[in-house]
Amino acid sequence: MQPILSKSVAADLVVAARICKGLTWAGIAESIGAPLVWTTAALLGQHPMTEEQAAAVCALLDLDDTVAESLRLQPSRGADPAKLSDPTVYRLVEAVSVYGPALKELIHEEFGDGIMSAINFNIDIARRPHPDGDRVVITLDGKFLDYRW
Amino acid sequence: MQPILSKSVAADLVVAARICKGLTWAGIAESIGAPLVWTTAALLGQHPMTEEQAAAVCALLDLDDTVAESLRLQPSRGADPAKLSDPTVYRLVEAVSVYGPALKELIHEEFGDGIMSAINFNIDIARRPHPDGDRVVITLDGKFLDYRW
Amino acid sequence: MQPILSKSVAADLVVAARICKGLTWAGIAESIGAPLVWTTAALLGQHPMTEEQAAAVCALLDLDDTVAESLRLQPSRGADPAKLSDPTVYRLVEAVSVYGPALKELIHEEFGDGIMSAINFNIDIARRPHPDGDRVVITLDGKFLDYRW
Amino acid sequence: MQPILSKSVAADLVVAARICKGLTWAGIAESIGAPLVWTTAALLGQHPMTEEQAAAVCALLDLDDTVAESLRLQPSRGADPAKLSDPTVYRLVEAVSVYGPALKELIHEEFGDGIMSAINFNIDIARRPHPDGDRVVITLDGKFLDYRW
Amino acid sequence: MQPILSKSVAADLVVAARICKGLTWAGIAESIGAPLVWTTAALLGQHPMTEEQAAAVCALLDLDDTVAESLRLQPSRGADPAKLSDPTVYRLVEAVSVYGPALKELIHEEFGDGIMSAINFNIDIARRPHPDGDRVVITLDGKFLDYRW
Amino acid sequence: MQPILSKSVAADLVVAARICKGLTWAGIAESIGAPLVWTTAALLGQHPMTEEQAAAVCALLDLDDTVAESLRLQPSRGADPAKLSDPTVYRLVEAVSVYGPALKELIHEEFGDGIMSAINFNIDIARRPHPDGDRVVITLDGKFLDYRW
Amino acid sequence: MQPILSKSVAADLVVAARICKGLTWAGIAESIGAPLVWTTAALLGQHPMTEEQAAAVCALLDLDDTVAESLRLQPSRGADPAKLSDPTVYRLVEAVSVYGPALKELIHEEFGDGIMSAINFNIDIARRPHPDGDRVVITLDGKFLDYRW
Amino acid sequence: MQPILSKSVAADLVVAARICKGLTWAGIAESIGAPLVWTTAALLGQHPMTEEQAAAVCALLDLDDTVAESLRLQPSRGADPAKLSDPTVYRLVEAVSVYGPALKELIHEEFGDGIMSAINFNIDIARRPHPDGDRVVITLDGKFLDYRW
Amino acid sequence: MQPILSKSVAADLVVAARICKGLTWAGIAESIGAPLVWTTAALLGQHPMTEEQAAAVCALLDLDDTVAESLRLQPSRGADPAKLSDPTVYRLVEAVSVYGPALKELIHEEFGDGIMSAINFNIDIARRPHPDGDRVVITLDGKFLDYRW
Amino acid sequence: MQPILSKSVAADLVVAARICKGLTWAGIAESIGAPLVWTTAALLGQHPMTEEQAAAVCALLDLDDTVAESLRLQPSRGADPAKLSDPTVYRLVEAVSVYGPALKELIHEEFGDGIMSAINFNIDIARRPHPDGDRVVITLDGKFLDYRW
Repeated sequence: MQPILSKSVAADLVVAARICKGLTWAGIAESIGAPLVWTTAALLGQHPMTEEQAAAVCALLDLDDTVAESLRLQPSRGADPAKLSDPTVYRLVEAVSVYGPALKELIHEEFGDGIMSAINFNIDIARRPHPDGDRVVITLDGKFLDYRW
Repeated sequence: MQPILSKSVAADLVVAARICKGLTWAGIAESIGAPLVWTTAALLGQHPMTEEQAAAVCALLDLDDTVAESLRLQPSRGADPAKLSDPTVYRLVEAVSVYGPALKELIHEEFGDGIMSAINFNIDIARRPHPDGDRVVITLDGKFLDYRW
Repeated sequence: MQPILSKSVAADLVVAARICKGLTWAGIAESIGAPLVWTTAALLGQHPMTEEQAAAVCALLDLDDTVAESLRLQPSRGADPAKLSDPTVYRLVEAVSVYGPALKELIHEEFGDGIMSAINFNIDIARRPHPDGDRVVITLDGKFLDYRW
Repeated sequence: MQPILSKSVAADLVVAARICKGLTWAGIAESIGAPLVWTTAALLGQHPMTEEQAAAVCALLDLDDTVAESLRLQPSRGADPAKLSDPTVYRLVEAVSVYGPALKELIHEEFGDGIMSAINFNIDIARRPHPDGDRVVITLDGKFLDYRW
Repeated sequence: MQPILSKSVAADLVVAARICKGLTWAGIAESIGAPLVWTTAALLGQHPMTEEQAAAVCALLDLDDTVAESLRLQPSRGADPAKLSDPTVYRLVEAVSVYGPALKELIHEEFGDGIMSAINFNIDIARRPHPDGDRVVITLDGKFLDYRW
Repeated sequence: MQPILSKSVAADLVVAARICKGLTWAGIAESIGAPLVWTTAALLGQHPMTEEQAAAVCALLDLDDTVAESLRLQPSRGADPAKLSDPTVYRLVEAVSVYGPALKELIHEEFGDGIMSAINFNIDIARRPHPDGDRVVITLDGKFLDYRW
Repeated sequence: MQPILSKSVAADLVVAARICKGLTWAGIAESIGAPLVWTTAALLGQHPMTEEQAAAVCALLDLDDTVAESLRLQPSRGADPAKLSDPTVYRLVEAVSVYGPALKELIHEEFGDGIMSAINFNIDIARRPHPDGDRVVITLDGKFLDYRW
Repeated sequence: MQPILSKSVAADLVVAARICKGLTWAGIAESIGAPLVWTTAALLGQHPMTEEQAAAVCALLDLDDTVAESLRLQPSRGADPAKLSDPTVYRLVEAVSVYGPALKELIHEEFGDGIMSAINFNIDIARRPHPDGDRVVITLDGKFLDYRW
Repeated sequence: MQPILSKSVAADLVVAARICKGLTWAGIAESIGAPLVWTTAALLGQHPMTEEQAAAVCALLDLDDTVAESLRLQPSRGADPAKLSDPTVYRLVEAVSVYGPALKELIHEEFGDGIMSAINFNIDIARRPHPDGDRVVITLDGKFLDYRW
Repeated sequence: MQPILSKSVAADLVVAARICKGLTWAGIAESIGAPLVWTTAALLGQHPMTEEQAAAVCALLDLDDTVAESLRLQPSRGADPAKLSDPTVYRLVEAVSVYGPALKELIHEEFGDGIMSAINFNIDIARRPHPDGDRVVITLDGKFLDYRW
């Protein structure tokens, strides 16, 4: 009996195969009919895939069953803190630090006491063309949950 | 000579006056013709206001010149870390931890090596009605900056 | 214009008045018709009270309007980390550290991929008589939320 | 002479065998006649098993004696801190942070100065059906211990 | 209504009065008929005193009722971490770091799986004369509690 | 040339051999004529053994010379911080946090300005029978060292 | 006897007077004939001023002798860590994190084993016009110190 | 399928080959026609190289394709925190701590509210001869970005 | 009853009076006939003074009895961590980090298993003239204590 | 191509060979004609050796060229923080914490504003016989560097 391949090892194999095959994350997502950010996050180890999704990805990337089995595993979620100081990720951390308390005020003003769910939640990313340089647009969309005793 | 009122004291006075006057953040933002999240963040101490903006807010809220002077001050930005564990703010932190590395991959795939600026940047919040419960939609919109030597 | 009394100062005044009047948390909760843990947490600064609740508590405890106003304020939730190492609180922290990963496995086994909400959530405490020494029984009851994109 | 298999390696092997055999934690617990949360925690490395329990689990899962020997080992208890930020586990951490000081007040009010034991202690989890969505109910049940010099 | 004097302020007043009156901790403990370490810890804010104990101490030290009231308050226990690096206290921290895992092994060997209670617990300190220099002898004495589900 | 076996690997081998041989820590300590806590701590990597002690232990446990050599090595002392949150060890940490400042006061009162040495120091553990449940008694015994310039 | 005004209070008074008088840091530096970054850092509390410099600054800003005395005080240097996460300062922190190890390699290649002194050191800032947007140019200039035994 | 060689392993191989071949960082940078600090940082894992750059470096250093492939990989940027306390790197950290807030004031004074980009950014290092000992001159040159909503 | 002046407030008053009177630390130490580093450390709050020493210092500096009383108080020793990153102090921290493990090896080689006491210990500082620039010479002198059970 | 042996692996091999050969650090230092603390620190990985020094040490200890090559490598300096809590090393840390601010005052009093260099610096250790027990004497000797713009 062997432990199941860890999700971080599986992710490293997916990344290597993706580059080697010349595929994009968008292409992989499309091929399994799943949302773009969800698919990328799942392949990096943040969501469990269904048996069909895992099999389809592994077929596309020529990865074997041990990877597929790992992709289906329930994850322990959350990034390695060292990855949060990468400049591309850090700008998101900074935005939460600068605007988080203001967003809290506005959620309470509009919805009352509660939160935006991070579970019943999706996130999307898009390119918005702009004459001064194109823009990254990230949309967080979560159900409002009120504190309800 | 007195030090200028600190921005956190000014923010506490703005919050008290806003509640006492029965005004909303949206109402204040509209009265000075500035974006909603920007205005709220500025009044909580994250952006300097212009002389006109500060004067208009203080007139609306019956606050004196010492508050206006503080609102114009250049801030040292960023939230007190203790505020990031408030559940409403923490869901944003969690979303960055779960999806940050995936967003990094997708920014690089779509735009190349670089970041979404958090400076040439805006953020908006909206309510999206939904039969299963309305949703909080937060949009981050920042210029892509490529690593350019 | 004065800032509103902070919730931690208001809590200190509530605690002093409660002891001085010889009242129990249970008695206060009953007098406002609200659940026991909720009421205690609210008075310690973790939930906003309605105008009626705040007025009733202040009347009962002979506290003035500045306290009532503070009790209605939207809180920034979460305990001062120093309070989590108090032995009575720490046993809860320890239980989460020892049993948290097992509970995670069992939530996933019974409900699928998701969480027990800490927002649509209540908590109760009771004494269970036992010949070897009475027992503290704490019940956490939260809606299951599945990861739903 | 070899070191005994570490409890985290043994846990990884148990998890892999459990999935491969299509067994549930509940099924394993039942098969050894032990409580559900206790059994899951023990197999994840938080409690030592008796020789009989370890042998029975390994027979059920087709694991060899090195695993059984590891399951009987006295553990060094407590979760890897990284696992506490997984969203499913974090909601428990958050509940302790928000309600811990209130529970402390109520333990002292009902029982006097002391703690709920985390040693003479059990914990259970159940599904409570609810029209708005089923609920996770977690019950902590520990002996009250008074500070006794 | 005033908040009750905090236990750390009360402790500072007790320390000042003790020095001013030329009293020892041992003398105070004896005067209220309570154990030495317990009394010292209680006056430093780690245990609540009974009404009689608090009154007796305050009479002895010429401290007023606000101190007595504070001494009766239920504490949030535990030292300020900065105090743990004082060399006199740090030697205890170091002893736990060097010998803690060995003591754990020996508790399990002698008693089985469980802990020495820190609640049903007392601690004493004594001077042991020795030709090479007198010795500090600290005795920790706690009930064994076995993990009992 | 190979590095000497690290003390943590040697400790894992000692633990495995001890269990496999059915020996106790007390039995090993007796067989080398050394104190119980000292011997256990030394075998867990906190003290260097003499050549004779290391040879005797390895003969008793059927361990080879590479282990003996490691047991004689000068250690870098102190526990892995993760081991300090194990509940059995943590109760000692908690006792230091709750009673440390009181012990400091009493050491100064009895001995003057100085510390209890953690070097010219021994520690013992015993079982004290008690009708309400036997007790763990841990005795720290260190030479008083006065601050002497 | 009063303590000397702390350097952070003095800095707050300097900042307020500078804004109130409509002066620039560059103007203040020029008026005392000292370098720009040095003067700004000194007034923010990072360098002691001479009696003449302190007097000249206080005359210019209409600040009294207590401020001058504080400006002459030997500082305990270094920024409050909270100020390092302000985005304007953080970009410098990020540059050190991304390029620090490369600069270390190049210092060793060019100069041998040693450091760039941060004491025999100056720093300057300038604006460099650029058609795509002007640039901030910061120059660090420190004496090379070789490891010399 | 193998994971791609990690960038830290690739960097170790580059360092070994560079020393073995007797090449300098400056020589490598020149050979690929890229800036000195950029090239060094890229080879240490902080920037992705183009296919041509990676191939040229590996040809020069007799490293195989697996290294070249790793050098082209998109990095997760930022130094291991342990490397920031190396004295040569730490002097840069110290300079940011001592002068960071002053530089922030001067950036705002000269450019307005904004930052020096660390992305549209370059950095250079030079030796400046000086009779009292040559000096290390490090120049940071980044585009000013104003906070623009 | 007032708390005794805290040692940090007393130190601030001593510093102010010392500057105001134009006295040196060396002069103060000489006037009370105590070692230089000891006296400075004691006045900064790290050692208790005798009644005579405290009175003599306060007479010399024109400070009142509340300061003298504070100087006699038993301290909780150790620097505020923020002060350890001041560059002048940090060089000592760095020396311990770079040379600490080597000194440990050499203490064990010369003396056997044990430590240099930091209690039966003194420290001195001197200027050593040198043609390349005078040198700071700091001497630590502590009794060797062997691990003795 | 292989990475160069890391300095920590090389240090482990040096330590093993030194013990196996029955050599002392002092003997090794003498054999290469280098200072004692410098040599020990260099072999533990804190200084690069010259080709001759590395070859001489490896010849003396029968270590091969891969070790010699590693000893010549430029180090990333500083101890693993876990090693700073070893009691023998910790006493140095404690001395810096207790006396660091006093030494800072005295450096400024004697030399003016500046530091003791930790680069143009040496350190020595000696045994000083004493009737009450021999003493460890550690001498830090660094060039004074004044803050010079």
